[in-house]
Amino acid sequence: MPVRLIECVVSTDEMAEIFSDRSVLDAMLRFEVGLARAQARLGLIPAGAAESIAIAANPEQFDGSLIAREARASATPVVALVDMLTARVHTISPNDAVFVHRGATSQDVADTALVLLLRRAGDALARDHERLTGALRALSERHAGAVMVARTLLQPAQPTTFGYKIAGSLASIERSWNAARAAIVDAVQLQFGGPAGTLSAYAHGLALAEALGRELGLPVPPAPWHTHRDRLAAAVASCGIYGGSLGKLARDLALLMQFEVAEVSEPGGRSSSMPHKRNPAGAVVAQASVARIPGLVGTYLSLMVQEHERAAGNWQAEWQTVADVVTATGSALAAVADAVDHLEVHADRMRANLELALSDATPDANVGAAESLRRRLLDEGAR
Amino acid sequence: MPVRLIECVVSTDEMAEIFSDRSVLDAMLRFEVGLARAQARLGLIPAGAAESIAIAANPEQFDGSLIAREARASATPVVALVDMLTARVHTISPNDAVFVHRGATSQDVADTALVLLLRRAGDALARDHERLTGALRALSERHAGAVMVARTLLQPAQPTTFGYKIAGSLASIERSWNAARAAIVDAVQLQFGGPAGTLSAYAHGLALAEALGRELGLPVPPAPWHTHRDRLAAAVASCGIYGGSLGKLARDLALLMQFEVAEVSEPGGRSSSMPHKRNPAGAVVAQASVARIPGLVGTYLSLMVQEHERAAGNWQAEWQTVADVVTATGSALAAVADAVDHLEVHADRMRANLELALSDATPDANVGAAESLRRRLLDEGAR
Amino acid sequence: MPVRLIECVVSTDEMAEIFSDRSVLDAMLRFEVGLARAQARLGLIPAGAAESIAIAANPEQFDGSLIAREARASATPVVALVDMLTARVHTISPNDAVFVHRGATSQDVADTALVLLLRRAGDALARDHERLTGALRALSERHAGAVMVARTLLQPAQPTTFGYKIAGSLASIERSWNAARAAIVDAVQLQFGGPAGTLSAYAHGLALAEALGRELGLPVPPAPWHTHRDRLAAAVASCGIYGGSLGKLARDLALLMQFEVAEVSEPGGRSSSMPHKRNPAGAVVAQASVARIPGLVGTYLSLMVQEHERAAGNWQAEWQTVADVVTATGSALAAVADAVDHLEVHADRMRANLELALSDATPDANVGAAESLRRRLLDEGAR
Amino acid sequence: MPVRLIECVVSTDEMAEIFSDRSVLDAMLRFEVGLARAQARLGLIPAGAAESIAIAANPEQFDGSLIAREARASATPVVALVDMLTARVHTISPNDAVFVHRGATSQDVADTALVLLLRRAGDALARDHERLTGALRALSERHAGAVMVARTLLQPAQPTTFGYKIAGSLASIERSWNAARAAIVDAVQLQFGGPAGTLSAYAHGLALAEALGRELGLPVPPAPWHTHRDRLAAAVASCGIYGGSLGKLARDLALLMQFEVAEVSEPGGRSSSMPHKRNPAGAVVAQASVARIPGLVGTYLSLMVQEHERAAGNWQAEWQTVADVVTATGSALAAVADAVDHLEVHADRMRANLELALSDATPDANVGAAESLRRRLLDEGAR
Repeated sequence: MPVRLIECVVSTDEMAEIFSDRSVLDAMLRFEVGLARAQARLGLIPAGAAESIAIAANPEQFDGSLIAREARASATPVVALVDMLTARVHTISPNDAVFVHRGATSQDVADTALVLLLRRAGDALARDHERLTGALRALSERHAGAVMVARTLLQPAQPTTFGYKIAGSLASIERSWNAARAAIVDAVQLQFGGPAGTLSAYAHGLALAEALGRELGLPVPPAPWHTHRDRLAAAVASCGIYGGSLGKLARDLALLMQFEVAEVSEPGGRSSSMPHKRNPAGAVVAQASVARIPGLVGTYLSLMVQEHERAAGNWQAEWQTVADVVTATGSALAAVADAVDHLEVHADRMRANLELALSDATPDANVGAAESLRRRLLDEGAR
Repeated sequence: MPVRLIECVVSTDEMAEIFSDRSVLDAMLRFEVGLARAQARLGLIPAGAAESIAIAANPEQFDGSLIAREARASATPVVALVDMLTARVHTISPNDAVFVHRGATSQDVADTALVLLLRRAGDALARDHERLTGALRALSERHAGAVMVARTLLQPAQPTTFGYKIAGSLASIERSWNAARAAIVDAVQLQFGGPAGTLSAYAHGLALAEALGRELGLPVPPAPWHTHRDRLAAAVASCGIYGGSLGKLARDLALLMQFEVAEVSEPGGRSSSMPHKRNPAGAVVAQASVARIPGLVGTYLSLMVQEHERAAGNWQAEWQTVADVVTATGSALAAVADAVDHLEVHADRMRANLELALSDATPDANVGAAESLRRRLLDEGAR
Repeated sequence: MPVRLIECVVSTDEMAEIFSDRSVLDAMLRFEVGLARAQARLGLIPAGAAESIAIAANPEQFDGSLIAREARASATPVVALVDMLTARVHTISPNDAVFVHRGATSQDVADTALVLLLRRAGDALARDHERLTGALRALSERHAGAVMVARTLLQPAQPTTFGYKIAGSLASIERSWNAARAAIVDAVQLQFGGPAGTLSAYAHGLALAEALGRELGLPVPPAPWHTHRDRLAAAVASCGIYGGSLGKLARDLALLMQFEVAEVSEPGGRSSSMPHKRNPAGAVVAQASVARIPGLVGTYLSLMVQEHERAAGNWQAEWQTVADVVTATGSALAAVADAVDHLEVHADRMRANLELALSDATPDANVGAAESLRRRLLDEGAR
Repeated sequence: MPVRLIECVVSTDEMAEIFSDRSVLDAMLRFEVGLARAQARLGLIPAGAAESIAIAANPEQFDGSLIAREARASATPVVALVDMLTARVHTISPNDAVFVHRGATSQDVADTALVLLLRRAGDALARDHERLTGALRALSERHAGAVMVARTLLQPAQPTTFGYKIAGSLASIERSWNAARAAIVDAVQLQFGGPAGTLSAYAHGLALAEALGRELGLPVPPAPWHTHRDRLAAAVASCGIYGGSLGKLARDLALLMQFEVAEVSEPGGRSSSMPHKRNPAGAVVAQASVARIPGLVGTYLSLMVQEHERAAGNWQAEWQTVADVVTATGSALAAVADAVDHLEVHADRMRANLELALSDATPDANVGAAESLRRRLLDEGAR
C-alpha cells in the first residue's frame, strides 16, 4: 500500500499499509469473526455459524471504497460492513446470517479495529526506534571526545562534545519512547459493550468479553471505554512527545549541516534545479513530519469531550486523527534513523568552529565534564 | 478516486479526487508543460521541445506511488517527477530532454500545483455552499413564524423563532464563505521564481512569468512567494472560520434532534445494533469533520515560520495540511447541506416545548422582534 | 499595568494595560452607561437615572478581583458587576437602581467590552506596525545592492540581495497587517440583543441599538451575533497570520545572526553567565511570542461551535483566548520592530559568505533580477 | 493573588497565586540561595557569602514588574534578577556580591523555578482531585440502581444506570490523574548545568548538583535537560488528558441539566437578566476551562523542538504556556468538583425519560449488567 502523493513527505509505505483499507477491513472483520467464535465457544450461537462467518469474512472480498462512501449515511462504516458480511454469510448458509454482529455495537468494531492497527504500528515504530537508538549510541561513543561549541540562542556559549550532545538526544528519545511504548500497550484493549456499553444483550457478558479478548489477543478492561478515551489519548500524546524529541535532534542536525557550520552532513538529498547541491533531506523530512503532530494531538485531546454513551462527532473524528499522528511519528522516526545511519561527522570542523568562536576556551578541559555526564545519560538509557 | 476507509467520516469522494495522485500529477505536469510552452512562446526553447514535453507529460503514464516513495530521498516529489518526465521526453525526442523544467525550482512546481488544486476545491465548495444557503434561506422563510424557546447555557431563556435562528446561521455561513472564497481566489497565484526566488535563470524572467501565468490561467504576483505564505494561510484560516460557522449549525441541529427535544429530525442515519433508531448522521459527520479543522489551521499557522528562501521542514509539511483542511471543510459542508436539505421541522413541538419551559411567556409577542432581525439578516446576505 | 513575570517574554506593558482589570471594568461600565444614556435619549428611562448610573460607574470604585472571584458562580463577571453597579446607584439615588442594565444580557456587556478592548489593541498594533514597516522599507532601500547567498533548506542556493530578502518580508507583513486591520475593524461591532438575542425587551429595540452604538462609537450589525463568532474569528486568525509573517522574519534574523554566519547583528541581549555574549534578544522574544499564537488561534476556532443562543463553555473561554492572541501578536511586533530598528547589517560578510558558498557565482549579475522584483514588492506595499 | 478579570472564568485564585509574581520571584530566589548554600557547603564559596545572599534574597524586596519589563532586553528575567540580587548583596556585604549566581545559567534558574511552581500546583490539584473523586464515588454508590436511558449520538439507545455512568467518568478521571500525578512528579527535577549544560564551571559539578538538589528538595537527573523537554511535556500533556476526562463529565452534566432532560441540576448559576433562571455554572466554567487546554498542549509540544543547548524562542515561550495549562486544569477541576458536590439527581425523571424513550425496555433487567461493570470500575479505582 503506497503513500499518496499529497502526503509523500510525511508518511511511509509501512504506515500507509497499516492504515490502508485492507488493514482496516481486516481488523474490523477480525472482530466480527472473533465475536462469533467466542459466542460459539460459550454455546451462544451454533459453531457452524461462527465458521460460516469466518469464511465470509475475507477482507479481499470487501470493497472498502463502497463502505467508505456508505459510511456517511450512518456516520460509521460498520453498518455497511455488517450488511455486506451478513449478505455474504447468507449466501454461504442462509440460517447463519442472523448470528452476524450479534449484540455488538458499531463502536465495539471500530474501536477494537483501531487498537489492533495501533498495535501493529507500535511494533513497526519499535523496530525503527531500535535502529535509531543503536545508531545514536554508536555515534555518541565514537565521538565522545569530539569537542565542539555549545550554542545557546544560536550563539556560541562554551565548549561541549558531540558525543555528549548526541547522548542528550538519545536519552530524551529513549525516555519518550519508553513512555510511548507503554502508553500504546496500555491503550490496546478490547472494546466490547454493546449499544449502551452495559453488555446487556448477553446473559454472560463478561465471560463473552474474556473469550473475545482471547480470540483477538487483547486484554479486557474492567468495563467498556466507549466515551472514556484517556488511554488512547495517552498513546496519542506520547507519540507527540516522542515526535518532539525526534524533532529536536532533526533541527540540530539541519543547523549543523548549514554550509557555514558544516559540522555534520547527510550524503543525501538532491535538488531539482542544482544537481550538485546536497540537501539535508532526512532532517527536513523529519521536521516536516514532526511539525504536523502537535496540532493533531491538540485535536485528539479536544475530541475527548464525548457526550454520554457515544459522542455525536468527536468520536467519529478519531480514526483519521490517530492514524495521522502515528503516521507522522513513523515518518519522522524513519527519516531521523536514515539520517543518523548515514551521518558524516566532521570533528575537525567542529574544533575549528570552536576555536574561532571561543578563542579563549580550553576545549579539552571541558571534555571531562561533558564525558561524565555523557556516561550517566548512556547508563540511564541502558537500564 | 474514493476516500480511504480510515477517513470515511471526514472526507468525500469529491475531495479525495481533488487531492488524488492523478490530480496532483496532473497539476505538477501542467506546470512543466506550461513552462515549456511559455518559454517556447518567448523563443527561449524550441517550439518542438515544448510539444515533446507536452506529449510526454501525460499523467496516466506516471506512477504516483513511485514518485511518492522517492520523494523522501530529496524531501520533494519534484526531483523524481522531473527525472521521469525527462526520461520520457528523451524517448520521444532525445535532444529535447534538456529543456525540461528549465530554470525552475521544485517549489515552483509544488506550490503552483497546490494552488491549482485549491482552485478546483474552491469551485467544489462553492457549489455545495450554494446548495446549503439556498436550503437555509428557504427554511428560514418557511418557518419565519415558528416560535420556539431560545436557549442560553442550554437552558430556556426567552421565546424566539426558528426562522430567525436559521437566519443567524445562514448569515454567519454566508459571511464566512464570502471571506473564504475571496481568500482562496487571492491565494491562487502563480509560484515562479527559480532556485533563489530571483528568476535569475532567465533574461526576461518577468515576461516569462506572465506568459506562464497565461498558460495556467493564474495571476502573477509582484514576486515569488516561496517563504511568504500569508495568502495561503488566509485561505486555510478562512476555511477554519467557515467550518466553525458550519459546526455551530450542526451542533444546534444535533441538540434539537435529541429525543427529549425533538424539534427537528433527519430522516437519515441507521444504527448497526438498533434497526429502528434514527441517528442525526449528517450533523454528526459535519461535527466530526469540523472538529478536525482548528488543529490543522493551527498547524498551518505554525508552518509559516519558514527559513530564508525555502524552509527546512515547514514548507514540506504543507501539502497534506492544506489538503486536510480543505477536505474536512468540504466534508462538513456536504454533510450540513444534506442534513438541511432533508430536515424535518416540528413546529408544534417547538411551541409545546416553549410553553412548558416558559409558561409565562407570550411567544407570539416576540415574533415581531425576531422577524425584523431575521429580515435584516437575510437582506445582508442578499446584498 | 505591568506584565506578570510569568509572561514576561511574551507580553508588553501596553498589551497588559489594554487587558488589565481597569480596562476591562472601564469597557463593561461604558456599556452600562451607554445603554442608560441611549435609553434616556429615547425616553425609555428618566434622564436622571442615566446620570446616576454614569456617576456610579466609576471603574476606580469597582474591585476587579472580587468580581473575578464571583464570576465563577454564574460563569460570567457581569452578574457581580451589575449587582455592584446597582448597589452604587441605589446609594446615589434609590429610585434609579431599577434602571441599571435594563433589558440587556450579560453577553451584551462582555462582548461589547471585548470589542472595545480589541479596538484599542488594534490602534496600538497599528502604531508599532508603522514603526516596523518604516524601518524595513528603509533597510531594504539601504541594502538594495547588498549581494548575499539565498539559502534553501538551510543550504546555499544562488545569489540574492539583502534588500530583496527584506522586501519579501516587508510585503508579507504589510499584506498580513492590512488583512488583520480590516478584520479587527470589522469585528468591532456592537453586541446588543438581550437574553434571547431578539431585543424583545424593548419596544424599539433597533432604534435603541442605534443610539447605543452612537454612544459607544460602534457600528450596529443587522442583528446580534451572540453565537455567531465569525467576525471575531477573522480578527483572531488574521493576528495569527500576521504573527506568522513576523515570525518568519524573526527566524531569518536569528539565523543570520549565528556566529558562523554573522551577516546581521542586534546590539542587544545580555547573558546572565557570559557578560560579553551578544544574544539575538529581539528575534528570540519575537519567536517566543509568535510560537504561542497558532495553538491559541486553533483554540479560538474550536470555540466557534457555540450552542443555540449562548454557548455552555465555548463562549466563556473566549476572553482570555482573544487577549492572549492579541497580546502575543503585540509582543512579537514590538520585539521585531526593536530588532529591526537597531539592526546592524554586515554587507561585507554577506559577500564573503556568498563567495565561499558559491565560488562560481557571479553575484552582481543577479542584482538586477532581484532588484526589479524588490521594486515591485515595495510598490505593491506603497499602493 | 487574585485572578485577573480577563481570565475570571478559566482560572482560580489558588492557581493565580501559584503563578503570581511573588511565587515566581520566590522560586527563582530559592534557586540562587540554594546554589550559594550548596557551594558554601562544598567549600566553594565562603559560608558568609551564602548567608548574605540568603538575606538579600527576600522576594518582598524585588519588583517583579520591573524585572518583567527588563526581561525583554535579554529574553529572560534572570539577567535583571541577578543584577538586582547582586546589588542587594553588595549593599549587605560588598565582597560577597561576586558569589551570586556563580557558574549558573539563566535557564538553570528559570527551569528550576518552574518545576518548583509545578510541584505546588500538583499538590493543589491533588487536593481538589480527592474532593472530586470522593464525591463521585459517593454519587455512584448512592445511585447504583437509578435506571436511565443511555444515549448514543444524543439519541436514546438502551437502559443503563446513573451509578454506572458516573463510575465510568470516575474511573477515567482516576486513571488520568494517576498518570498526571506521576508525570508531574517525574518532571519536578533540578535543572543545573551552567552555560553549556556541562557543569564545566565547577570542579565537582555533580557533587554540587546533588547538594543543590538537597537544598531544594529536588531529585537530580543524570544530566541537565536544558533542551530536552520530554518530562515537562509529559506533565503538560497529562494535564490535557486529565482535562479531557473532566470535560467529558462536565459536558454530560450540562446535557443532563437541559430543561427538556432535567435529570440532574446544579443549585448554582445566576443570570444577569433573568433572576429565576438556573444556569449550569459549574459545568460551564469547567467546559470553558477545558476548552483552552488542547491548543496549549499542542503549543507546548511544538515548543519541544529546541535548538542546540538553548532554544532561540521555543524555550522562552514555555513559562506562560505551562502556567496556562496548569491553571486551566485547576480551574476545570475546581468547577467540576463544586458542581458534583452540590449536584441534585432526579432519579424519578431519569426513569420517566427512559420509559418515554424506550417504551419496550425492561429497565430493571439491565441494572444487573450495569451494576457488575460499575463495581469493576470502582474496584479498579480503589486498587
